Formats: sequence, structure tokens, C-alpha cells
Amino acid sequence: MNKILRVNMTDLSVKEEAVPQKYERLGGRGLTSRVLLDEVEATCHPLGVNNKLVVAPGILSGTRCPNSGRLSVGGKSPLTGGVKEANAGTPLSPMIASLGYKAIIVEGLPAKDEYHILHVSDEGARLEPAGDLVGLGMYEFNEKVRQRYHEKVYVMGIGQAGEQRLANAGVSCNDPEGGPGRFAGRGGLGAVMGAKKLKAIVVDTKKYFDAPVSDKDAYTEACRKLVKILRANPVSGEGLPAFGTNVLMNIINEAGALPTKNFRYGRFDRANKISGEELSARATARGGAGTPTHNCHPGCVIMCSNIYPDENGQAIVSPIEYETAWSLGANLMIDDLDVVARLNRICNDVGLDTIEAGGALGVAMEAGIIPFGDGRAAIGLLEEVGKGTPLGHIIGQGAAAVGRAYGITRVATVKGQHLPAYDPRSVKGIGVTYAMTTMGADHTAGYSVTANILKSGGFVDPLKAEGQVELSTKLQIATAALDSMGLCIFVSFALLDDPEGWPTIVAIWNHKTGGKHSLDDVMALGSEVLSVEREFNRRAGFTPAHDRLPEFFRTEPLPPHNTVFDVPPEQMDRMNEQFNMLQ
Amino acid sequence: MNKILRVNMTDLSVKEEAVPQKYERLGGRGLTSRVLLDEVEATCHPLGVNNKLVVAPGILSGTRCPNSGRLSVGGKSPLTGGVKEANAGTPLSPMIASLGYKAIIVEGLPAKDEYHILHVSDEGARLEPAGDLVGLGMYEFNEKVRQRYHEKVYVMGIGQAGEQRLANAGVSCNDPEGGPGRFAGRGGLGAVMGAKKLKAIVVDTKKYFDAPVSDKDAYTEACRKLVKILRANPVSGEGLPAFGTNVLMNIINEAGALPTKNFRYGRFDRANKISGEELSARATARGGAGTPTHNCHPGCVIMCSNIYPDENGQAIVSPIEYETAWSLGANLMIDDLDVVARLNRICNDVGLDTIEAGGALGVAMEAGIIPFGDGRAAIGLLEEVGKGTPLGHIIGQGAAAVGRAYGITRVATVKGQHLPAYDPRSVKGIGVTYAMTTMGADHTAGYSVTANILKSGGFVDPLKAEGQVELSTKLQIATAALDSMGLCIFVSFALLDDPEGWPTIVAIWNHKTGGKHSLDDVMALGSEVLSVEREFNRRAGFTPAHDRLPEFFRTEPLPPHNTVFDVPPEQMDRMNEQFNMLQ
Repeated sequence: MNKILRVNMTDLSVKEEAVPQKYERLGGRGLTSRVLLDEVEATCHPLGVNNKLVVAPGILSGTRCPNSGRLSVGGKSPLTGGVKEANAGTPLSPMIASLGYKAIIVEGLPAKDEYHILHVSDEGARLEPAGDLVGLGMYEFNEKVRQRYHEKVYVMGIGQAGEQRLANAGVSCNDPEGGPGRFAGRGGLGAVMGAKKLKAIVVDTKKYFDAPVSDKDAYTEACRKLVKILRANPVSGEGLPAFGTNVLMNIINEAGALPTKNFRYGRFDRANKISGEELSARATARGGAGTPTHNCHPGCVIMCSNIYPDENGQAIVSPIEYETAWSLGANLMIDDLDVVARLNRICNDVGLDTIEAGGALGVAMEAGIIPFGDGRAAIGLLEEVGKGTPLGHIIGQGAAAVGRAYGITRVATVKGQHLPAYDPRSVKGIGVTYAMTTMGADHTAGYSVTANILKSGGFVDPLKAEGQVELSTKLQIATAALDSMGLCIFVSFALLDDPEGWPTIVAIWNHKTGGKHSLDDVMALGSEVLSVEREFNRRAGFTPAHDRLPEFFRTEPLPPHNTVFDVPPEQMDRMNEQFNMLQ
Repeated sequence: MNKILRVNMTDLSVKEEAVPQKYERLGGRGLTSRVLLDEVEATCHPLGVNNKLVVAPGILSGTRCPNSGRLSVGGKSPLTGGVKEANAGTPLSPMIASLGYKAIIVEGLPAKDEYHILHVSDEGARLEPAGDLVGLGMYEFNEKVRQRYHEKVYVMGIGQAGEQRLANAGVSCNDPEGGPGRFAGRGGLGAVMGAKKLKAIVVDTKKYFDAPVSDKDAYTEACRKLVKILRANPVSGEGLPAFGTNVLMNIINEAGALPTKNFRYGRFDRANKISGEELSARATARGGAGTPTHNCHPGCVIMCSNIYPDENGQAIVSPIEYETAWSLGANLMIDDLDVVARLNRICNDVGLDTIEAGGALGVAMEAGIIPFGDGRAAIGLLEEVGKGTPLGHIIGQGAAAVGRAYGITRVATVKGQHLPAYDPRSVKGIGVTYAMTTMGADHTAGYSVTANILKSGGFVDPLKAEGQVELSTKLQIATAALDSMGLCIFVSFALLDDPEGWPTIVAIWNHKTGGKHSLDDVMALGSEVLSVEREFNRRAGFTPAHDRLPEFFRTEPLPPHNTVFDVPPEQMDRMNEQFNMLQ
């Protein structure tokens, strides 16, 4: 990992650079955000010549550390106007790391209206005309790109949404079978890629676990220990492998925190019909390609992914995540997993973040464009995006844009990004994360559902304001560190509950790098990442006024608990001040 | 002027309140902005229950002071997200003032989906169901509202754009003949009115010059003096009456500052075909209803308005302003005044700000939706707004929304509001105003074209950065004071060039109120207004990062002078600091 690959779309040059010393200890989110702060003027247009797309494997990616296969994609977000890092679990992360690239930085804008593909292999990297691969959805693209190269290439790319430069365009990354469903989805980075007319990055190498490791034997031992810890934890060892992330559907519904009908209710009476249990039963019963237990990359020992088949056993989509089953299900009053799967497939094909797409459909239902609960109409509406109709251009920008276009105030966004699958009135810790994080509403930025609902890492009453800011902040810091390591967020359960968890991570980090880090250094890294991001946002024009939930969460009680979000904003602002260290 | 009329749309109550002492000396923009700061939480949703629509005649409105008939409309802007005041010259201003209302504050949101009309007369005010007046464009509405009441009512109301709550919906106010063309157009306040389901305010009184005056004789004398001063000035006494504001078309084109083809060029080779001279010639030659000299309210002695007729002498629209002839003409490469007039009429009917509408069409042309220069296509596209199609919902939100929907970076907006008819690279003083003002890009907030181009109030080289910040700031302060007085901005030319101008204004102010103000007090008032607005915006989340022009004005030289906008942002930020006095 000693090179940065710099791709200039203005002059179509590709060059390798040595990694500056200050970036050596960084990776993943820590690196993408730092490059943004150093190289991108924060007030630039997200789709203009001055924004950059930064791709970075984690510090531990490309090694045999379990669940270290997250790939971070960063840029100034077309959706939020602020810093953005979205990551996906994908073979691409270890492959890029194994090729020795600490980051790929794509900059500039081409003068001509011609798309390119960046081909990265053991022989180096080159830009090639995309030719007839332009205009394709991700399923067809993935087929054709393998016809052009060969069966074993892996790709990250954009569908029609990215080509249209829509604010909800995500970046599709391959799963182990070459499916397009692992998305660095949130924040519209697919539109940044589209603006740069980069249809895809094709990675062509057999290298996989070839990133350098300082002390191999000790490393291997520590990694084995982490595997054991992950497997021993009931969430990462049992719940997630059996039912995937959608194991949460019934749990969150029972907790009265499942946002239903565009955040009107906290329970959906048909939640079980779109739950992980139902998904698992169908995937098993229908057979064929279906499976409830699937990995996003070799090296994952949790296997929370799945392949959802139709009645004939043909794969419809992979995976259906909990947040997707919510956004395209309960949020829309849709209770049919087959419909959810079809909607999910459209998102994967066109290249849309599913949370934001569900949010957009929900606001469209709120506006009366289609009725709540009408799955067929929802499919038709979502298909407009790929067709490029005016309505598609509205829907494809996400929920806030639909709200603006139709004058709707009931729009659950923070910094323009739609809230995920946990109502902040019944899980107040996650509400704090939505409000505070630099990313716009994002559950993964500080997953307080752990202590609020799952009683992992202690318990903080989800219905009370007390303790939520402290809880969320700790998790935000730890998550920023994990996102920099390239580790999956689902290692957290074990880290929170097993006293050997964090020391093992620290050991892995040290054996990888030859460093002598302590747990304090992990947290210092997380705090530094948050400070870097906060400074970018400050320069971009963000203030505490943006660290707020929409008004109705503070005024409209949510059944069944009939609570409002009442965490004092000043508490969040005070806590956030520790991340102003770069000013 | 001793009452505030408070209209609550939630419980449909209407009540009169005494004017709080702190508001007594305020009026117009000074009052609307102050009420916003005092009563509206700056982070509220512009279309939500917590925003308010504030209507206020100027301090001098309802008296025989010439050109004092501006009516200020204020609210948190759906377009910019910040403070907004838009004003129009209309008989409504003196009438409301003569009825004793210092302000009308419309608040709350109705529970039911039913529109109302606020009827205001000598007998007081009441809310009435709008009934079959809903859904109508402003021309038909103005006819039917007079059938319902009587011929001599005057109205401010919203067309379909406001009903759709689109961010470019303006508030239509009547001219003396009851035409709908006097718009408080900018910033989407029509959408605020639409969200409150208030179709119109109908003012029904014969009172006109009946606002109280402290020292009548001295007042009358000072007003007569001001009339003389205005008539003696070549701009307000000759140029504007003869050719209207569109006298500027050839002047600004000659100066190389006429933004052409979405701000690509500073000259339009067919500018003369859409100029004030051409307009005047046609209005005269075609006869009938046409006239190049028309007033927006009795009491105006400048008469810069016009009525533009078709070939049979039937009125198409009134007025065509310079900024409209530019936005719907040169900006789109359209060189036919008849087409401009048709587009202008659609804006007046549907209820859209013409500058923003032209900006939106320009970005639509940039996106390739229709070709530049195609007038017929432009008419068809603009008609989509009234029809409520998805494309209409995009166009009706203004230029920034079109840019977002189609991924276009060449979008000339500040704080989301489109630039008016003066390219900031060739008139750098107005560029400073666009960037600095609280309002989003707005030429009327500090019309530096005076000293930059017209050599009124001295001369500051328009192509140089030097002196522009000082020039714009002085004008912004003076304008905020004039907007509070209810005075038309076109008194400025006389104020800048005639040493007796300002002292006469001060005398009028004192004789009206019984005060002992000096010229310093006028400027103090202006500074206070700007401070109030800046504080509102600060609370709403604005920072100096928002006080910037789009990137391309700093990097892309504008022919024919091939200059970029190079006024240092730090200069503007430093100057703006004086308006942080309320923090």
C-alpha cells in the first residue's frame, strides 16, 4: 500500500504517486475525508471540475483480518453539499489494497461528452473509452463488462442515475459472484462519478490477501482470535448469519420504532411479512439461487447478506437489507417482500441508494402522486428514473427534492439526506446521530440502536433524552475509526460486549503496521476523522443550525409510545465542539 | 397606521392588535424583516406551520409623497431558505396603509384542504372560503374576484404556482387598472401564501391617501419638492418615462454586461430587438391598449411601467421590465419581443417571478431539454408549470432546481436565487451586491449599476475590483432604508445626483412622523434592517460561505471585456461584519 493512483479526467492522464507521509497511517474513511479537506475547496460545486472522487480501502483491507473488506468512497456530496464517505463490503477493497493502492483519486472533468472506464490491474492503470457500456443498468453492464474483459474482473460503477448526475445516485460495487448489489450508496457519489464521465472502475487481478503485514504470525493469530470473538457473539455469530440485517424488522417494530407510512407510526401491523424471518423462510423454501446466508466478500465471517429468489428460484436481488425492507416496505405501507425485492432490484440496476429511494417514494405518496401501499405503482414510479423522464429526475434526486418539487413539509431528512429505518422519537440515541453526524441522516455513523434497543454495550433507555448524546458520540468516534480500518460495522457488537474485542483490534492494527498503538489511539483516530469532516463542512457553510432533525419530530408524538424527540440541541452542539479542533 | 392585522390560518381567526412600540418607527421591509426575526424560528420549514407571511406598506405609503406606493411582503424564503422581502409598486400599499394597518401577519396552517380569501375593508377584515376562485391563473382570477365583490377591489394573490407551493411562486399585486402584473416576485413567497391556503387578500376601500401625517402643510410642500427633483433628473424624468426600465437593454449591452446565453457572453447581437426603444415604438405604433408610459400606482411620477399590445392593439402583458426582457430574451437567445411578452404573461398568470423563470428556462436549455433561441418551445415549457406536470414542477422551482434535476453546474444563483440582468464580471459592483445581500442574488438590494454604468452618484470602474465593496455597501444600506419608507428604488438617481434629494426625503420623513431625524438616522435605519436580516440568516444557518458567486464567474472570462469576477471575498466578509451587530 505505497501508491496513490491519480486519475485526471480533464487530460485523461493516469499516474501513480508515492503516499505522502501524513497519509501513511490513514485508510478508508479517514483517508477519503482527509484528501477532501486537503484537495477540494469546500464551497465547490459537487458536480463541477473542482470536486474529486476518492476511493480508499481500509487500513486492514487486503489482509486476512475478518470483515476488513470495506471500500470507502468519498467526495463532496451532491445530496448534502457536505463531506461524504460511503462504504461497501466488496472484494474490490482487498483487491485494490493488494495491488498496492492506498487510494484512487479521480479529479477534473472531461472536455468531451465521452465516458471512460478505468482499468486497474497488476500491469498498472489506464483509461479506456466506455463505448457501448454507457447507458446500461448495472445488471446488463456487469454482464457486458465481463464479455469485454473476462469473467473474473470486479467492478465499481454507476447506472443511469449516476450518468444523469442525480443526487441519489450511488456507486455499485460487486459481491463475490460479480453481482452489483454492494453499494457505496448514500449521498450521491454516483453523480460525482457521472459528472466525471467515469462509468466504472474495473479491477483485474488475482491478488486478494496480498496487502503487506508487518508481523505475519502475530497478525494471523490475532485475526483468528477476532474470528472466534465474532462467532461467539450472539448477534454476529447467530442473528445476522441466520436472518441477515433484516432480523431487525420484528425487533424494531416491537420496540415501536419502525417508521411507518412516512414516519407517522412506530409500528407496522404487517411488519412480519417483510421481516428477516420471512425472507429466510422464502429464500430457503424457494431454493434455487436463494439463500439467507451470503457474504459480501471473501473474508467475511458474519455472512449477513442474502440472495432473494423468485418463486422459481431465480435470483431477484441480493441483498435485501433491513433498511431496504423498511424504506421500500413499512415506510410505504408495502407488505410484500416480492415487491420490495423488485424495487430493490430497480435501485441496484439504475444505481440508487435504497434508503433515499424509499424516502423519495414515501414523499411522492405523501404528495398524492401514487397511493401509499400500492406496490405496482411504486415499481412504475421508480422505473421512471432509469427512463430519464422528468418525474424520474425528481424521484432520482431523493426525498428532499420530491418534497421541494411538490411543496411537501413532511420530509424526514437531515442535511438533505433521508432518515434510515429507526424513528428518532423512539430510539433517541440514533436521532442524535442523525442530527450530529457530518454525513446527513445516517444510522451507520453512530449506531445507538445497540445500547438503545439491542442492549449491546449497556442500556440507555431509548425513550428518554438522557445519555443519548454521550452514547451517540462515543459510537460516532469508534465508528469513524472502524470505517478507517475498513472493518464492517457489525464487528461492533462483539467489541461492545466482549472485553477482549477492542484489545484484539488494537493488536491487529499494530501487527499490521508495526505500530505501538493503544486503544486511546483508536479513539484519537476516530476523533481526528470527525474533526476533519466537521472542518470540511464548516468551510462548506454548515453550522449547528444544520445539525437538527426536521421540526415534526419535536412536535408530533409517535405512536405507540407517543414520545417526541426531545434531546436538547444545545447538548449536541456542545458535544460537537470537541470536533472543532482543526479550526 | 396604528394596527396590526393578525390572521391565523390554523383556527381561521382574524384579529387586530395595537402596534408594539418598538415597531412604531418601522415600515415596509424594515418591519417585515423585524417581525420575522421576532416571531419566526429561523430554522423552520418555509412551507410549515411556523413560517409567517408579513405584508407591510412603507412608512410613507398612503400619503401624497411621490412614489411611496411600495408594498413589502416578507417571510422565510422557500427559494433561499433565508430572510426574504419582496416589494411591488401597487395601489394596495397606500390602501392598506390608509386603512390603518401597519402590517398584516398571516400565520399558522389550516387543518383542512380549503383555500380562503382575506377580505379587508373599512369594516375590518374577515376570512372567506375561496370557493371556485381556487385553481385559477391570475388573469381569470382578477376577473372573477371582481365579479364576486365589485369592480373597485384590489387584490394580491397567487396563481397555480403558489397553490403548488413552488419555490418560484411570486405574489401578484394589482396595478391601477386591476391588472395582475405588479409582483412581489422574488424568493417564492407565493408558495408561503399557498402553503397557508390563502388564495388572495382582497382590499376593498376608497381610502387611498388617508394615512396620517403629522405636519400636513410642511409635508405637502416637501413632497412637491421631491416631485420636482424627480422630474428634473434625466433618468427618472426622461429615460424611465419614455422607455421604461428596458431603456437599459441597449445600455447594458453596450457596456458588455448583458448576460447572454446563460451567462456565456456579455453582448447579444440582437439586443436592440428586445430593447425599450423597440418596445416603446411597438406600443405606440400598435396603439390600442398599448403604451410605453404607465404607472404602477397613482402617486407615481416616474411612470416606468408599460402596456405591451399585440398587433391588434390588445394588451398582452403589463409591464415588460428590463430584467424580464433580459431573462426571457437575451438570456435565452430569444430576440422577439412578442415572444418575451407571451412568456411574461404566462409568468404573470401562473404567478412566477420572471427573472427566476427565465433563469430556469436558461438552465433547461443548458440541459438540452429545449434549444436556446426557440421561443415556441420556451412558451410550451413554461406552460407546463400551470398544468402541474412533473416538468412544470421542476421549472416552477427556479433555476437551481432545474440544475439539480439535470445535473447542470452552469447555474447562476446565489443562495439559490437566480442572478438578474447584469453580469457580475462586467459590473463588479452589482456582483458584490449579489454575493453580499441577505436576499440571494438581487439587483435591487444595492443597485451598483448606478455608479458602475450610469455614472449616477459618481463613477466606479465596473471592470475593476477596487471600490466595489464600498459602493455596494452604501447602496445596500440606503436601499434598505428606502424599502422601509415604501419608496420606489428609482428615486435613487435623484438622491444620488441632486444635493437636495436626501434632505428632502429626511424632511418628508420628519413631517410625516413628527420626528427629528437626520440623514444619519436614515442610514442607521438601513444598517439596522440589514443587521436584522443578517441575524435571521445566521440563525437559519447562513455563513460567509454562502456570500459567494458561483465558481464559474471567477474562472471564466466574459466577452467582450474578458474579465472575471475578482473582488476578494474577504473584503465582502469584512464589510458585512458591521451588520453582525445583533449577535
